[in-house]
Amino acid sequence: MSLSSFSDPRSVAVVGASADPAKWGYWLARGALRGAGRRRVHLVNAKGATIDGAPSVRSLDELTEAPELVVLSAPAATVPDVIDRALAMGTKGFLGITAGIDAAHGEPGLERRLAERIRAAGARIVGPNCLGLYDAATDLDLAWGTFAPGQLAVISQSGQLGLELAGLAAHEGLGISRFVSVGNQVDVMAAELLEDLVGHEQTRAVVLYLESFTDARGLVATMARLREAGKPVVVLTVGASEASRAAAQSHTGALTAATDVVRAACRAAGAALVDTPAQAVELAHLLLGGPLPTGRRVAIVSDSGGQGAIAADTFARHALQVPRLSEATRRTLADLLPATAAVANPVDLAGAGEQDLSTYARVVDVLARSGEVESVVLSGYFGCYGADTPALVERELEVVGALAGVVGAHGRPVVVHSMSHDSVAVRSMRQQAVPTLHTIDAVARSLELATTMAEDAARPLPGPVAPASADSGKALDYLAGRDRVCAAGVTYPPAAPVRTVEDLRAATATLRAPYVLKAGWIEHKTEVGGVAVGLPDAAAAEAALVTMRERLGEGEYVLEELDRQRDTVELIVGARRDESFGPVALVGLGGVQAELYRDVRIALAPVGEDEARTMIESLRAYPLLDGWRGRPVVDVDAAAAVVSAVSRLLAEDPDLVECEINPLRVGPEGAVAVDALVLAAHPTDADIPGDES
Amino acid sequence: MSLSSFSDPRSVAVVGASADPAKWGYWLARGALRGAGRRRVHLVNAKGATIDGAPSVRSLDELTEAPELVVLSAPAATVPDVIDRALAMGTKGFLGITAGIDAAHGEPGLERRLAERIRAAGARIVGPNCLGLYDAATDLDLAWGTFAPGQLAVISQSGQLGLELAGLAAHEGLGISRFVSVGNQVDVMAAELLEDLVGHEQTRAVVLYLESFTDARGLVATMARLREAGKPVVVLTVGASEASRAAAQSHTGALTAATDVVRAACRAAGAALVDTPAQAVELAHLLLGGPLPTGRRVAIVSDSGGQGAIAADTFARHALQVPRLSEATRRTLADLLPATAAVANPVDLAGAGEQDLSTYARVVDVLARSGEVESVVLSGYFGCYGADTPALVERELEVVGALAGVVGAHGRPVVVHSMSHDSVAVRSMRQQAVPTLHTIDAVARSLELATTMAEDAARPLPGPVAPASADSGKALDYLAGRDRVCAAGVTYPPAAPVRTVEDLRAATATLRAPYVLKAGWIEHKTEVGGVAVGLPDAAAAEAALVTMRERLGEGEYVLEELDRQRDTVELIVGARRDESFGPVALVGLGGVQAELYRDVRIALAPVGEDEARTMIESLRAYPLLDGWRGRPVVDVDAAAAVVSAVSRLLAEDPDLVECEINPLRVGPEGAVAVDALVLAAHPTDADIPGDES
Repeated sequence: MSLSSFSDPRSVAVVGASADPAKWGYWLARGALRGAGRRRVHLVNAKGATIDGAPSVRSLDELTEAPELVVLSAPAATVPDVIDRALAMGTKGFLGITAGIDAAHGEPGLERRLAERIRAAGARIVGPNCLGLYDAATDLDLAWGTFAPGQLAVISQSGQLGLELAGLAAHEGLGISRFVSVGNQVDVMAAELLEDLVGHEQTRAVVLYLESFTDARGLVATMARLREAGKPVVVLTVGASEASRAAAQSHTGALTAATDVVRAACRAAGAALVDTPAQAVELAHLLLGGPLPTGRRVAIVSDSGGQGAIAADTFARHALQVPRLSEATRRTLADLLPATAAVANPVDLAGAGEQDLSTYARVVDVLARSGEVESVVLSGYFGCYGADTPALVERELEVVGALAGVVGAHGRPVVVHSMSHDSVAVRSMRQQAVPTLHTIDAVARSLELATTMAEDAARPLPGPVAPASADSGKALDYLAGRDRVCAAGVTYPPAAPVRTVEDLRAATATLRAPYVLKAGWIEHKTEVGGVAVGLPDAAAAEAALVTMRERLGEGEYVLEELDRQRDTVELIVGARRDESFGPVALVGLGGVQAELYRDVRIALAPVGEDEARTMIESLRAYPLLDGWRGRPVVDVDAAAAVVSAVSRLLAEDPDLVECEINPLRVGPEGAVAVDALVLAAHPTDADIPGDES
Repeated sequence: MSLSSFSDPRSVAVVGASADPAKWGYWLARGALRGAGRRRVHLVNAKGATIDGAPSVRSLDELTEAPELVVLSAPAATVPDVIDRALAMGTKGFLGITAGIDAAHGEPGLERRLAERIRAAGARIVGPNCLGLYDAATDLDLAWGTFAPGQLAVISQSGQLGLELAGLAAHEGLGISRFVSVGNQVDVMAAELLEDLVGHEQTRAVVLYLESFTDARGLVATMARLREAGKPVVVLTVGASEASRAAAQSHTGALTAATDVVRAACRAAGAALVDTPAQAVELAHLLLGGPLPTGRRVAIVSDSGGQGAIAADTFARHALQVPRLSEATRRTLADLLPATAAVANPVDLAGAGEQDLSTYARVVDVLARSGEVESVVLSGYFGCYGADTPALVERELEVVGALAGVVGAHGRPVVVHSMSHDSVAVRSMRQQAVPTLHTIDAVARSLELATTMAEDAARPLPGPVAPASADSGKALDYLAGRDRVCAAGVTYPPAAPVRTVEDLRAATATLRAPYVLKAGWIEHKTEVGGVAVGLPDAAAAEAALVTMRERLGEGEYVLEELDRQRDTVELIVGARRDESFGPVALVGLGGVQAELYRDVRIALAPVGEDEARTMIESLRAYPLLDGWRGRPVVDVDAAAAVVSAVSRLLAEDPDLVECEINPLRVGPEGAVAVDALVLAAHPTDADIPGDES
C-alpha cells in the first residue's frame, strides 16, 4: 500500500487541535495550517476554539469530506472512536501522536488491534506515540518542533532524538527534506518509510535512528538501494554499553556485540554507523556536499601554521593520511606563494591569503589536480573575511565560487574548516557543494566516515542466507566438527579417532609424529586437561592416552599430527547467527589480543575471499602477518579463504548455529586449523557418536 | 620585571594605526580606543588621519608624555626606529604585532638584538609577530578579533589558533579574561605570562597553546601552582602525527613520542592535554562551572529514552560508568515519577518533566545526594521550554535555579546537554555553575577529561631530577647494566660472567639449572643468536657456550639461572631522557602488545610506587595481571616497585641516558628482571670490561 497519504495528502484533519501554545495540539494545528495553500486543513477541537485565527469543528462528523490524513492528537480515551469515524468516512492515513492508548483503556494490545482494523479498511497508521512528520516539498508540517527545509531525511524510532538531529542540522546550516517519527510502529515500519525515500526527490541523504531491527537483511538491502540512488544512509543505534553480549558458547559470541553487528550490516550496505546525533549531522555535511573522497590522502591548506599542524595531528588520529607532496607540486605551489610560506603538507599560506584572497582557491586547485591526495581541507580564517570586514564580502564570495569550481573541475572533495560558524561565505560554500564545518574535529570525523563509506560502497552485498532452523545448538564431537569444516575446504592436520590403545597403535602406523591427543567429545577440552600437545612419538602418545583415559574415562579421543608449520601467526575465525541480522563472520588475532584489545573484524556472512582479506588487513595486528620486524610474511590469502569458508558454512547450512576455529595457524605456506567448535541445531548420530559407536 | 605594562598600562600608543577597516592598524586603534575611559590612548598614523573619530599624531615625537605601552603595528622597516624613540621617552612595554623585522632589514637576529636593547632599558616586549593581547578587567583590547569578557585566559604561541579558541568559546557562551598571542617570544615567554595568571583575579581557567617547550619542568611547576590557585590549565600542542619518534636505541624511545611526554607532564601538573581547540573549550565549560567530578560514576536523566540510551553508550566509550542504582534510590525516584517512567540509570522521565518542570530538579537532587554517582547529567529538551513556549520562560528559569541549588547543596557537578544552543535558560545555567553543552559528545569528552584532571590533581608533583650530563650514551655490558639496576633494588636471577669453559664449570657449581647463556657485550643479543634459553643442565650450558663462542667469538658471556616463576606476565619497564621534559618512565605489556597496540603508560620520572601502580592498573592489559580467566593474580606491587626504581635511576644519576628491562617477569610472588639495556654517557672501565679484563 502506498504511503502517499503521509507525504502529500489532499486534506488533513488534526483531531485534538488546541489553542494553548504549550500544548502539542497547538503545534500540530499551526503546522497543518502552514500547508493550507496546498491542501484542505481541518481542525477538530472539542470546544470549537479558534486556533491561530482558524476556525475548528467539534467533531469529525461535522466535516463534509473525508480527510485523507487524520492526525490523532486527542486524549487516548477517545482515539478508538475517532479512528472508527474516520475510517467510516474514508480516511486513508492516520498519524498517531497520542501515547498510552492501551493503558488508557486498560486493554493491552488495543493499539495493535486498532492497526489491524485500519489495515483491513485499506488505510495505514504511522505511530502511535510518535512526534509527527514533516515533508519540506509538500508543506506538510505535522510535528512538534521547527524544521528548516533542506535535503536531509530523518527517520527516527525516538521522536525527540529525531528532533535533536533536525535541530543540530539547522544549527549547522542543514535543512530537512522529510522527517518521520515512527513511534510504536504498530503498522508502518521504519524500513518501509526508508524504502519510500528511494524515490523522494528532495532527499539526498538519510539519517536513521533505530533501537530494534526487524527484517534486518531487508533493511540492509534497502540501505544499499538508497546508496545506489545516491542517497547515503547514516545509522544511529543504541546498546553499545550493554553488558549483554550475545549469549553464546564461544569467543565468537562474546566478541560480536549487538552494535558491532549493526556496524557490519551498515558497512555491507555502504551506510555508516555513527555514535551520536552530532556525528550524524557532521557526516551529513559531506554527504550532501560534493563528491566523497575515494581515498585517505588529504592535503591541508591553512593560513596558520598552528591550525595546519592541529589539523594534521587530528587527521592522523582519524586514520587519514597527510602525505608529503611531490617536488613538482611543491614547485607549483611555491610559485603562488611568498618565500615565507611553507610549501609542505600542511601548506602554510603565511599571509598570502590575506594579501590576495584568490590565493586560497588557486592553492586548493593545485592540490586537487595533483593526483597526490583524494581530498583537500582548507582550515582557518577563510569564511570570516566578509564577516569581519564588510568591504570584503563580495571578494570572499568570488573565491567561494572559485573553490566550488575546483570541486566541479577535479571531482575531489574540498572541505572547509572555518572559524566562522555561519557567515554569508560559509552559507554560500554549503550551498555550492563545499562542505563547511566549524571545528577541525568535525572535519576529521566526517572525512574518516565518508571515506569508509566510499570504500564500502564499492563492495558487493553479501549473498543470500538460508533461514536458521533453530536458535541454539549442541557442540559436535571434535572429529565430526572438523569434518564439517574440512568439507568446506579448510585444511586440518591428518587425524584418526582412537578409543583404545589398539586404535592408537594403528593410527600411529599411518600418522606422522609428533602428535596431539584430544578428548574429542569434551567441548572445553583444554580446561580439563583433555589436550596433550607435542607428543614426540608413538610411545608418548600411548602413555598420554592411558593417562587421559584414567582421568576422563572412555570416549572418542582423537590423535592428530602436530602442525609443523614455522613462523605462524594464530588467528581466531568464527561465525554465528545474530538474532536480527543472521549469520555473521569474525576474524581476529588469536590469544588474549582478540578479547583484551577487541582486535577483531566482523562482517555479515557470507563473506567473499576479497572481503575476508580486507577484514584481516584492517586488524590492528595485521603488521604481524605482513613481515613484522623481519618475520616471514604469512599466507593471508589462505587465511582469507578460511574466513570465507566458515562464513559460507553458516550462511548455507540452516542447521549450523555456530562455528569457530581457534586457533587457525597461518604460516608462509598456508593456513591450518587445529581446533573446531561446531554447534548444530540437530546433530545426527554420526556427529555425536557417544561411547557406544 | 613586572608584566603590569601588558595588563593595565596608564597610557597606550598604537604606532601604525590605520583608518582602513581592512587593516590590522585599524582594529588595534579601534580596540585601544575602547579603553580610553581608563587610560590615555594615542594613535600614531603617518598621515595624521582621523580614525573612528579620534585624531592621530604623525610620530611618537609629537606626544607630550611617554606612552607606557607601545603597540608596534608600523611597517617592519620602521620598527627599530620606533623602539629607540619610545625607549628614549621612557616606554616600559612593547607589543610587537609587525612580522618579518629581520627579513625587512636583511639582518638575521635583529629582533633578538632589539629585545636585548629593550631589556637593557628596563622595558619588556611581547612578540613580535603576534596577534595582540586583551584583558577584560582593564578594558585593554589590543588585538585582531573580537573578545567577549569572561573568565577563561588564552595564552597562545599561534595567534590565529588563540583567536579560534576565543571564537569557539564565544560561540559556546564563554568569555575571555585575558588573551595573549606570544608571537616570536624574543623576550616575554609563554611560561612567564602563565605564571602571571596565578594572581590574575578574573581568570578561573587557562588554555595554553604551545609548539615548543623550554624550561619544561618549570612550566609543569607553574601549571601546578595555577591548579592549586583554582585555575586549571588545558594544554594544546602539536606533533602527535610526526613520524619523528625520539631517536633512541630502545623500545622505550620508540614508545615515548613527544606528545605522550607532554601528556605525562600535564598529568603530573593536574593539567589536561587536549587534541583540538573545540575540546579545550568543551572542557573549559566544566572547569569554569561547578565542582569537578571526583569519580567516574554518572547518573543520566533524560526526557527521552533514545537520548538517555545514546548518552549511556557515549559515556561508556569515554571511560565513564553508568551504574545500576540502589533499590532505595529507585524507590525514591519512583515516588516522583509516573508509572511509565523508567527508574533505572538512565532515568527516563517519560513526560514527567513536561507535566511539571520541577521534576527535572527533584530527580537530579535525588541522584546528586544518593552517594551512588559523582556527577549527574541531564540530557534532552530542558533549556528549550522557554524558547519554544514563551509562557514557560520564568518557570524554566526557576528550575534552573533549583538545579544550581542542587550543585551548591551536594557539591556534585550537574552537567546539562540541552537541545538548545543558546536559550535564556541555557545562558542562565552557564552563569550559575551548571555547565551546559550542545552535544552529548561534548559532555562525555569533557567529563572524562575533568575526571582525569581531578584524579591527577590529587597526586604529588614528581621530585627533583639531576641535570643530564650528556644527550647520548653507550650501552653497558649486560652484567654491568644488571648491576646498576640491581643496585636500585630490582631482582635478577643469580648469574656469573663466563669467558671460558672453565669459568662455566665453576659457575654451574654454584648456580642452579636450568640456565640461560647470554653474550653480554652484544646489545641486540637475541637477533644474532646471542641468547640460549632453557639449558637443562651444566653439559647443555657448556655445549651452548662452545657453539656460541664459535659463532660470536670471545667475550664476556653471562650464565644466568632461568627464572622459574610460573604464571608470569611479562612487562616492559623503561626510562629515558626527553629533551624538553627530562627523565620519563614507561611501563607496558611485553611482547608485541606494547608496540602494536601502544598499550603503555608514561610518566615524568621519578615515579613513586603508588603512581607506578596506577600506571600499571591503567594499562588495557591490566586484567591479565589481575586474575584473567582464572589465572593467578600476580604481584603488581613488586612490578610497581621496579617501575619506580628504574625511574629513580634516571632521575638521580646524571650519567644514565636510558634504562630498559624487557621483559620483567611478574608472577604471583614477585617480579624478576631477565634483561637490562642500560645506556650511560660515560661508562667506566668496570662497566665495559671489553675482552681484556
